Amino acid sequence: MAEDNKYVEEIVRRILIGTGNKGKFKEIERILKGIGIEAILPEEEVKVEEKGNTFLENAYIKAEAYYERFKMPVLADDSGLVVYSLGGFPGVFSSRFWEIDYGGYEEPVPDKDTANIRKLLRLLKGKEDRRARFEAVIVLLLDKDRGVFSRGVCEGYIGECPKGDKGFGYDPVFIPSGMERTMAELDPEEKNRISHRGKALQKIVDFLKNMPKD
Amino acid sequence: MAEDNKYVEEIVRRILIGTGNKGKFKEIERILKGIGIEAILPEEEVKVEEKGNTFLENAYIKAEAYYERFKMPVLADDSGLVVYSLGGFPGVFSSRFWEIDYGGYEEPVPDKDTANIRKLLRLLKGKEDRRARFEAVIVLLLDKDRGVFSRGVCEGYIGECPKGDKGFGYDPVFIPSGMERTMAELDPEEKNRISHRGKALQKIVDFLKNMPKD
Repeated sequence: MAEDNKYVEEIVRRILIGTGNKGKFKEIERILKGIGIEAILPEEEVKVEEKGNTFLENAYIKAEAYYERFKMPVLADDSGLVVYSLGGFPGVFSSRFWEIDYGGYEEPVPDKDTANIRKLLRLLKGKEDRRARFEAVIVLLLDKDRGVFSRGVCEGYIGECPKGDKGFGYDPVFIPSGMERTMAELDPEEKNRISHRGKALQKIVDFLKNMPKD
Repeated sequence: MAEDNKYVEEIVRRILIGTGNKGKFKEIERILKGIGIEAILPEEEVKVEEKGNTFLENAYIKAEAYYERFKMPVLADDSGLVVYSLGGFPGVFSSRFWEIDYGGYEEPVPDKDTANIRKLLRLLKGKEDRRARFEAVIVLLLDKDRGVFSRGVCEGYIGECPKGDKGFGYDPVFIPSGMERTMAELDPEEKNRISHRGKALQKIVDFLKNMPKD
């Protein structure tokens, strides 16, 4: 029991963020800072094959790989864009949509984000149903055999062309429900409040708040 | 926050056990009772396709299906036998090992447990390395977007022939490390203390204990 408490203290103070994506790290760091938790950027990125069929599985695969390497509580996420009229694609393939065997390939020029967006807009060309959701699953692995997970969803639709230069990934073409701006036109604070990752992270934060501090 | 607390109270009092397996229910019920939590047996079994590649994914699939149907906190597990010399098989296929396309099929007579054990003993015949582990992953889904998971492992080896009539599944051929009896020869209390499911459940129990009660 004494050991349990020591351990909870450790969690509440410092959490390794299992990502090599600086944009993602900054989003998470900002939110954790608000409850007095220090987000640690790994000294090096741990490469894993995200072979899961679901966001939960991929988030767990990442968290486990970072835990194995750094032996401290790890928070990892997997997220993606789920487009209803594309049967849920790109889903777990969001970050490499340009190169997968669905709807044709796209040259990764000038960069992968742009290629992914080009492919998406091509596949949705002329389609009336442009509804989509961003979905994020976060796994907080406390030790190798125990963890917490949460899911956050942001419903919206895909715009006709990219707008805005904040954020990353599909942000420039994703317009959250009830808004007229794309996710890439929102300030970080505004984005965190409504985003899939922000919502999922808030649920993890609620867990951490509920844990005894001493 | 008020809502959060109400919700934690609810969790601590009653948890639906997402299983149709009475043996498993009784094991879990006994352990939860020890910390004042009532285990609820579902009015009807919810059938799901356990198509995940991992115990975590399958446990989550089950928990989600029960949550969708009963809208209350659900505990579900997935577990299996991992045999080292069989490259990890039967693993997630443990309960239907007899019928999968690995190592030949087995007639399910007189019952599936027996068929699974027969196939296992056939595949291990003459093998020196009989090491195996039972592994369980438990998911406690608190609401549709938030949960806790834990993993428990019991290392051991596969005996030459079935012994004992307690427990279920592969228990009659699994001999825990350091013991001379099979899992099916242990009393329920003794089994819960060392079993994969018992250990995984204990970790979930630690979580629940750490949650505020009012």
